[in-house]
Amino acid sequence: MAKEVVLAIDIGGSLTKIGLVNRNGNILGKRVFKTNGQDPFNNFLEKLNAEIEILITSLDSTHKLISIGIGAPNANSLTGNIENPPNLKWGLLTPISKVIGEMLKLPVVLANDANAAALGEMKFGTAKGMKNFVVLTLGTGLGSGIISDGRLLVGQHALAGEIGHTNVDPNGRQCNCGLRGCLETYASVTGIRRTVFELIAEMSEDSPLREISFDNMTGVHISDAALAGDPIALKAFDKTGEILGGKMADIAAHLDPEAIILSGGLSKAGDILLNPIKQFMELRLFNAYRGKIKVLISTTTSSDAILGPAALAWSAFEKGTP
Amino acid sequence: MAKEVVLAIDIGGSLTKIGLVNRNGNILGKRVFKTNGQDPFNNFLEKLNAEIEILITSLDSTHKLISIGIGAPNANSLTGNIENPPNLKWGLLTPISKVIGEMLKLPVVLANDANAAALGEMKFGTAKGMKNFVVLTLGTGLGSGIISDGRLLVGQHALAGEIGHTNVDPNGRQCNCGLRGCLETYASVTGIRRTVFELIAEMSEDSPLREISFDNMTGVHISDAALAGDPIALKAFDKTGEILGGKMADIAAHLDPEAIILSGGLSKAGDILLNPIKQFMELRLFNAYRGKIKVLISTTTSSDAILGPAALAWSAFEKGTP
Repeated sequence: MAKEVVLAIDIGGSLTKIGLVNRNGNILGKRVFKTNGQDPFNNFLEKLNAEIEILITSLDSTHKLISIGIGAPNANSLTGNIENPPNLKWGLLTPISKVIGEMLKLPVVLANDANAAALGEMKFGTAKGMKNFVVLTLGTGLGSGIISDGRLLVGQHALAGEIGHTNVDPNGRQCNCGLRGCLETYASVTGIRRTVFELIAEMSEDSPLREISFDNMTGVHISDAALAGDPIALKAFDKTGEILGGKMADIAAHLDPEAIILSGGLSKAGDILLNPIKQFMELRLFNAYRGKIKVLISTTTSSDAILGPAALAWSAFEKGTP
Repeated sequence: MAKEVVLAIDIGGSLTKIGLVNRNGNILGKRVFKTNGQDPFNNFLEKLNAEIEILITSLDSTHKLISIGIGAPNANSLTGNIENPPNLKWGLLTPISKVIGEMLKLPVVLANDANAAALGEMKFGTAKGMKNFVVLTLGTGLGSGIISDGRLLVGQHALAGEIGHTNVDPNGRQCNCGLRGCLETYASVTGIRRTVFELIAEMSEDSPLREISFDNMTGVHISDAALAGDPIALKAFDKTGEILGGKMADIAAHLDPEAIILSGGLSKAGDILLNPIKQFMELRLFNAYRGKIKVLISTTTSSDAILGPAALAWSAFEKGTP
C-alpha cells in the first residue's frame, strides 16, 4: 500500500514554505522561496508550481500525495479565498484553494496562518494531547488560533482568533488595521521595538540600542541587550509582559484554556519575556483560573511552519472533508 | 407513548425556579421559591424536594419525567458541584448533581447559570437557528455563555465564559472577586448604579436620582430617569455602552460570533443601552468584523429562566449523555 503524504503550503509575507508531510508529521521534503507579494499573483503561482514539481518529483513511487493544506494571512477557510492581506498585493480576493486545487487535481484545505499553526501544535507540536489551548504567534504582528474541545474555533464568518486586535488602550498606538491601541502594537516584534523607542526617549541610561535605527532594530537586538542587562531592553520586556499577561488573563476569562502557547520571533526571547507575562497574567486572572493556565513557548521553529498546513490537510482527511 | 418532560431547576442568589418543560420548550408547570442561601444546604434541599413533589404530582399519567437540568452560580459541569458561590453559604463544594440525582433517581446535568442560559437561547429563545453567539446576562453581575459551532464552549476546567471578569482598567473599581476594574463592575445593574453615583458626584445638574440612596436604587430607577431625559442617567447609559461596546469588540476578536445577545435586568432598558453599545462596538471592531456582528436583546424574561436548564437537560438527552 502506498504511503500517504500531504502537500503543505505556508504562504508568508516574505517567504513561502512548502513541504511533503506524512501522517506522523515527518517532513519528507521541503522548499523555501520568496513570496514576492508585491508582484502579481500569477508570478507567485508559476513559481509555486515549479517548486511543487521539484518536490513531487523527489517522491519515490511508494508514496502517494493525497491532499493539500494551505496556511496564509487573511485566509478564509469557508470561502477558500485570501482576502485583501496588507502584505500581499494580489487584490481584494485571491481564490487560492480553487486555483491550486485545479492545478494539482487534489482536494485543498485553507486556513488563516495562525489557525493552521494552532492545529499544527495540537497534532505535531507543543500541544500534543491538549484539547483546549490558544496559540499566539508573536511576529511582525500578533496572530492567534484557538482550539476548543479538540476543534479549531472558526467562528461565524471564519474570522475567529484576531486577538492581536483586542484593545489595550482606545487612545493608544496606531495600528495598521486603522484602530488605535490594538494588542499587536505592543505585543509583537514590532510592538516591543516601539516600546524600546518610547523608553529611549523617556529614560536617560546608556544603551547599545541607542545606536540602532528603528528600521534596523530586530527582536534579537532587543533580547540580546536584555540578556546583557541593558535597563531599557529589560524594561521593554517587562512592559510587554505586563500588557500581554493582562490580555492573556482576558483570554482565559473567555476560553478557560489548559495552556496559552507563544510562538514566533518574540517568543524566542524565552524567560525574559515569559517571567513578566506569567507574573502579570496571574495577577489579573479571575480567581477560579489562578494556577491553572500554563504559559508555554512553542518548541517548533519557523522552519516547521509547514506543520500547520500539514495538520490542516491531515485533520480534514481524517474527518473525511474534503 | 408517554410524552417526555424534563425537570428544570434554576438556582439563583435570591430565587429558585423549577419547572417541567417538554421538548418544544413549553412549560407545563412552574414553581418559584426563595433560595435562602444563608441557611444550610439541607434546608434548601428539603424545600426543593417538597416543591418538586408538588410539580410532579400535577403531571398526568401521559407524561414521563426523563431527566433533570440544573443551572446555578459557580456550578461546574465536569464535577457536578457548586463551588463556593459568594451568594450561597453552602460551603466550598456542594455536590448538587449527586444529591438531586439520588433523590429523584434520574440523570442530572449541571451547568453554570449563564452557560445554561446560552443553551436556552439557542434551543428555545432569541438564538434559535444560530451556531455562533455569546449571551451576556447583565444582572447583579455580568454572566456569560459562549456557543461555538452549535456547542457550548466549556473549557478545560469547565470554567469558560467569565467575561464579566475581563479587565477594563487595572486600577479601576473594586470587584467582589478581589480584582480591580472587572467588566462587571461597570456593565451590570450594580455597575451602572456605581456609574450613576460617580456622575452624581461629578456633575451639578438636578436629577431625581439624587433623592435615592445607593442601596435603594434599581436599574428601573435609572432607565426611567433616562427615558425622562435625565442627563445623569443618560450619561450613565452612554458610559456603560462605551465600556461594554468596547469589550464586545474584544469578544468578537476572540470568537467571531454571529450575534451577542444581552439579557438580564439591565438589558430591559432597550435602546438607551443598545444604541451606545452598538456605536462604540462598531468603532472598536477590527475591520473584518464591521457590520457583521448583531447585537440583540433577549426576548426571554426572568420567568423563563428555567428554559436554560431545560435546554441543558434536553441537549444531553438528545446526545445520549448522561
